[in-house]
Amino acid sequence: MDASELGRWPYCDLAHLGHIELLTPKPEESLRFFTEVMGLSVSGQEGDSVYLRGWDDYEFHTLKLTAAPKPGLGHLAFRVRSLEALRRRVRVLEALGLGEGWTEDLGHGPAYRFRTPDGHRMEVYWETRWYEPTEATRPALKNQASRFPARGANLRRLDHVNLLASDVKAMRLFLEEALGMKVTEQIVFTGGDEQGVWVTCNNKTYDLAVTKDHLGAKGRLHHLTYAVDSREEVLRAADICLEYGVPIETGPHKHAIQQTFFLYVYEPGGNRFEIACPGARLLLAPDWRSIVWNEEERKRGQAWGLQTIPTFHTYGTPPVEEA
Amino acid sequence: MDASELGRWPYCDLAHLGHIELLTPKPEESLRFFTEVMGLSVSGQEGDSVYLRGWDDYEFHTLKLTAAPKPGLGHLAFRVRSLEALRRRVRVLEALGLGEGWTEDLGHGPAYRFRTPDGHRMEVYWETRWYEPTEATRPALKNQASRFPARGANLRRLDHVNLLASDVKAMRLFLEEALGMKVTEQIVFTGGDEQGVWVTCNNKTYDLAVTKDHLGAKGRLHHLTYAVDSREEVLRAADICLEYGVPIETGPHKHAIQQTFFLYVYEPGGNRFEIACPGARLLLAPDWRSIVWNEEERKRGQAWGLQTIPTFHTYGTPPVEEA
Amino acid sequence: MDASELGRWPYCDLAHLGHIELLTPKPEESLRFFTEVMGLSVSGQEGDSVYLRGWDDYEFHTLKLTAAPKPGLGHLAFRVRSLEALRRRVRVLEALGLGEGWTEDLGHGPAYRFRTPDGHRMEVYWETRWYEPTEATRPALKNQASRFPARGANLRRLDHVNLLASDVKAMRLFLEEALGMKVTEQIVFTGGDEQGVWVTCNNKTYDLAVTKDHLGAKGRLHHLTYAVDSREEVLRAADICLEYGVPIETGPHKHAIQQTFFLYVYEPGGNRFEIACPGARLLLAPDWRSIVWNEEERKRGQAWGLQTIPTFHTYGTPPVEEA
Amino acid sequence: MDASELGRWPYCDLAHLGHIELLTPKPEESLRFFTEVMGLSVSGQEGDSVYLRGWDDYEFHTLKLTAAPKPGLGHLAFRVRSLEALRRRVRVLEALGLGEGWTEDLGHGPAYRFRTPDGHRMEVYWETRWYEPTEATRPALKNQASRFPARGANLRRLDHVNLLASDVKAMRLFLEEALGMKVTEQIVFTGGDEQGVWVTCNNKTYDLAVTKDHLGAKGRLHHLTYAVDSREEVLRAADICLEYGVPIETGPHKHAIQQTFFLYVYEPGGNRFEIACPGARLLLAPDWRSIVWNEEERKRGQAWGLQTIPTFHTYGTPPVEEA
Repeated sequence: MDASELGRWPYCDLAHLGHIELLTPKPEESLRFFTEVMGLSVSGQEGDSVYLRGWDDYEFHTLKLTAAPKPGLGHLAFRVRSLEALRRRVRVLEALGLGEGWTEDLGHGPAYRFRTPDGHRMEVYWETRWYEPTEATRPALKNQASRFPARGANLRRLDHVNLLASDVKAMRLFLEEALGMKVTEQIVFTGGDEQGVWVTCNNKTYDLAVTKDHLGAKGRLHHLTYAVDSREEVLRAADICLEYGVPIETGPHKHAIQQTFFLYVYEPGGNRFEIACPGARLLLAPDWRSIVWNEEERKRGQAWGLQTIPTFHTYGTPPVEEA
Repeated sequence: MDASELGRWPYCDLAHLGHIELLTPKPEESLRFFTEVMGLSVSGQEGDSVYLRGWDDYEFHTLKLTAAPKPGLGHLAFRVRSLEALRRRVRVLEALGLGEGWTEDLGHGPAYRFRTPDGHRMEVYWETRWYEPTEATRPALKNQASRFPARGANLRRLDHVNLLASDVKAMRLFLEEALGMKVTEQIVFTGGDEQGVWVTCNNKTYDLAVTKDHLGAKGRLHHLTYAVDSREEVLRAADICLEYGVPIETGPHKHAIQQTFFLYVYEPGGNRFEIACPGARLLLAPDWRSIVWNEEERKRGQAWGLQTIPTFHTYGTPPVEEA
Repeated sequence: MDASELGRWPYCDLAHLGHIELLTPKPEESLRFFTEVMGLSVSGQEGDSVYLRGWDDYEFHTLKLTAAPKPGLGHLAFRVRSLEALRRRVRVLEALGLGEGWTEDLGHGPAYRFRTPDGHRMEVYWETRWYEPTEATRPALKNQASRFPARGANLRRLDHVNLLASDVKAMRLFLEEALGMKVTEQIVFTGGDEQGVWVTCNNKTYDLAVTKDHLGAKGRLHHLTYAVDSREEVLRAADICLEYGVPIETGPHKHAIQQTFFLYVYEPGGNRFEIACPGARLLLAPDWRSIVWNEEERKRGQAWGLQTIPTFHTYGTPPVEEA
Repeated sequence: MDASELGRWPYCDLAHLGHIELLTPKPEESLRFFTEVMGLSVSGQEGDSVYLRGWDDYEFHTLKLTAAPKPGLGHLAFRVRSLEALRRRVRVLEALGLGEGWTEDLGHGPAYRFRTPDGHRMEVYWETRWYEPTEATRPALKNQASRFPARGANLRRLDHVNLLASDVKAMRLFLEEALGMKVTEQIVFTGGDEQGVWVTCNNKTYDLAVTKDHLGAKGRLHHLTYAVDSREEVLRAADICLEYGVPIETGPHKHAIQQTFFLYVYEPGGNRFEIACPGARLLLAPDWRSIVWNEEERKRGQAWGLQTIPTFHTYGTPPVEEA
């Protein structure tokens, strides 16, 4: 391995998206949504936060739900591949002057905090707490993190997060250079105007997406996404949202970009939430060349022709006033 | 990164299983099975070989079907993550005295050939030939390797290969130490008697399985597997096999090990073939601890109780006489 | 049985929707669409017509595709439950002065032709020609009409037809009184303004729908529908339409009315065509009370919130000029 | 209509299978199985009985669970198409000397009790109690009986019952002649030895099956079945049964006869229970000719080759000693 490639995809130091801390002004309603309607399970509670996970998430938590005056992103965290990987990333982040120091949490060991150029708070960590099933959550098959809940939408695992950013290009450069991630797809308008970027640190086709904030705000959250096994389960999630009065923003439909089968809803705290089926799609080619979509292609809408709704480019959390 | 970990999972030099060469004494019938019934497409032909791929396989071929007196494995090949990764693996294989030198093929650049301790022929290669869609196979969405065929079982991509071996432990050590792969699940009977091992080089839960040859033969093939998107498509593949008179060996059912939803059939040349749905299951933990199944657990059969059929432990290709 | 109920649902004389004759100005392209893309099979040909069926349709044909200057409805036909049922219906239709006399066709015996109050041509018939599988279409299971085609969208069977009408109420009264059908759902706006009606003659929740022609034209076709087994197969049909360049009008999505999971496309001749999954939904209650949807409820759009597209109320075949 | 056909399929007086009373020696465990694991809901309770239904069942109950010393069939009931239909059936049953008089129940009006030739207790009734949703069970779409529960296997509706009988032919004649049902498939061995019969009273391909009791007992229950919408949901039900420790007898797999996709389990009381997907399969032909399977055909096992397990021919409830 050429030393200059060390820690960069396809030898990326980041292993996977670990968890997201979501802020909600309606903590009880949000908790009921994620547990009863979506089928996540509670691992623990501390202060104003509840720790949640899908039945196939191996760590203590993938969602930290924290009471706050406004909805939005608390932070998101990536687990790295080794202790040495963690040290290497910290050195890079410190050198860039984006570091904010070490922190700990209920679900993992020391984590290094930093800010993206757009101001989103992130963390990287190595030591983690594996989820230990209880008598009630012990799975029948021991190669499974916990038992299938048979409740609500039965979300399987955290899949990805989509951030809004005032400057997509700056975010892309940061994700590539500071975190060693791989760009898999992009939206670039005429003149090199970057409108969106999808990046990964492993064989998933993306762990993180960053799209243009049309209101020009900084550091906002577009949505977070959990995966289910089949497109049928996304449809069933829509049936369930309908029954529970969960507001559906758009879908179910299939994205042209990344081909994700999606359903977007609003959780009670006001954050956009996606239930998705990535299916058997994997990024296996170590020399994958980014797919670039231009303005004309984006006008065609989603894969089967559904037009992208206007709120998709303006609504994020925390909400901001349109100019 | 500690130098001793270089090239080992989760920084494995191997990127993914690239292709398998399958030997068949009935080349025309096998070809019709893989194209018309299973939905693979022909990329090219050379000598006694036809080159095939699933609609989502990005390379020129993932299956090389070669006419031969007996069914069995020609060779299987892994693509590596970089040119330097290739050189590193070649050095290791040469040092072990298992190398057989360089070769080329229609679908890729220089490949280094070697034998496993049990005698299976394998290759590693870096330079590859990306599949170039024709007018007839160009997909509607440009982030897809080729158009969905809408024919037969519509197999998506090569998933994994299962080898039989006279000595599973020797194979496991070779795969871990020479190839840097990760053991994800194992069958180990009392006294450390290794009966099976599942290994990966990426975020799939396995690319390769090796199980005990109960006839004591060396270097045989158990089966090869292509993936579809949903369990429903595996069921539909069973409907299609029934209509086409394809012999079904067992399934559809769900394995306890790896939880793969499977259907095993025999292709006309006599090789066992699996249509499978891995679903959204991924190996994300960089410190995954191998799941070890003992003899008692294996007696329970597959996930929902189907007993493993006796031929599963004895039939492989080429067939050999029972003692 | 009270003599006045004789032949009325749930003892309806009509057994099921038998077939539809579809007119197309592009007979070759339409034929290729229905066979290659949709997976129907050709049973026969005569004059300017080709006779088609889905793999589970038991009769010789369910779709008669006829070359014509303009797209639209040739006729649609219901099979009755017995010879006596046919005679009874003919007496009623003759008494109403809507009869046009007897005709025959390749796929069935004597059929009695009549017009609806809005001018749509219909037929009722008893003697039919069961589809006889050939060597190539013989199913593996003898309780199935023909083998699963494993081609395109693999449409299973004719499901229903949707007509446009200038006067929905007049159509409803005719379907109830002359044909003995059962109203299962309706759209009725304030003041009793009937905008749509769904009727059945058996345990399906509808065989026929009639919706208001917003252009005021008479006797037009809105769409015809074939069923597949699962919602996943409707999604797959959308994938296939995308690949083949078939124009998708709307969907996939779930109707609020009847809860059908739908995909609307245009076949090359210009007729609207629906691929749908009715699932396990059946109308079992012999005293079912019609569900009436009002204007406010319809404004909510489809089940998961998709807005009904404007063309849905104006486009029909043959096309007419908007005033 | 010829008077002799009055009340016979396809003008059958029976509308549909209404409900089954199931006896269980473990009422609490059985109730927990049907509600928590299978997703049925409780409508009411009276004496030693609990009344249950699936989310799409329109009546007050489809399952009456009654505490009893041994498992088995309490009774099963068919709803008829009209009051006159009820009177006509009662006259026939009285004339055959099989009637036992009138009874009432929490879920319906006057029901007429009778015995089959093999001794199974049955009822026919017209007046019924439609299920009235509560605030908690009111569906979002008003054409649905109650809200989707999002709990356990989410069973949709009662589908069919399978009885064991010492004399299948006697049962078949009774079902055809006394109840006016239609034979759709049969197992008949050499010499006219009837081993099984599937009958319907509507467009479902069967409401009731009767198979040979190989222990020669009379009046036993083989199993009862609820339907889900897709084969995927049957597979998910198997996952759920695995997690809850519910004993799986056989499946999931596809029957050759009727092509039902099945999963057989034992509910805690010892009764065999089936979760099935009938899919889009309907019996539409009013002159359907019964499909007859012979001994050789049955030896091939189920559709995809799974062998029928021995207990399938001997285990029924109440259990009896093998000779």
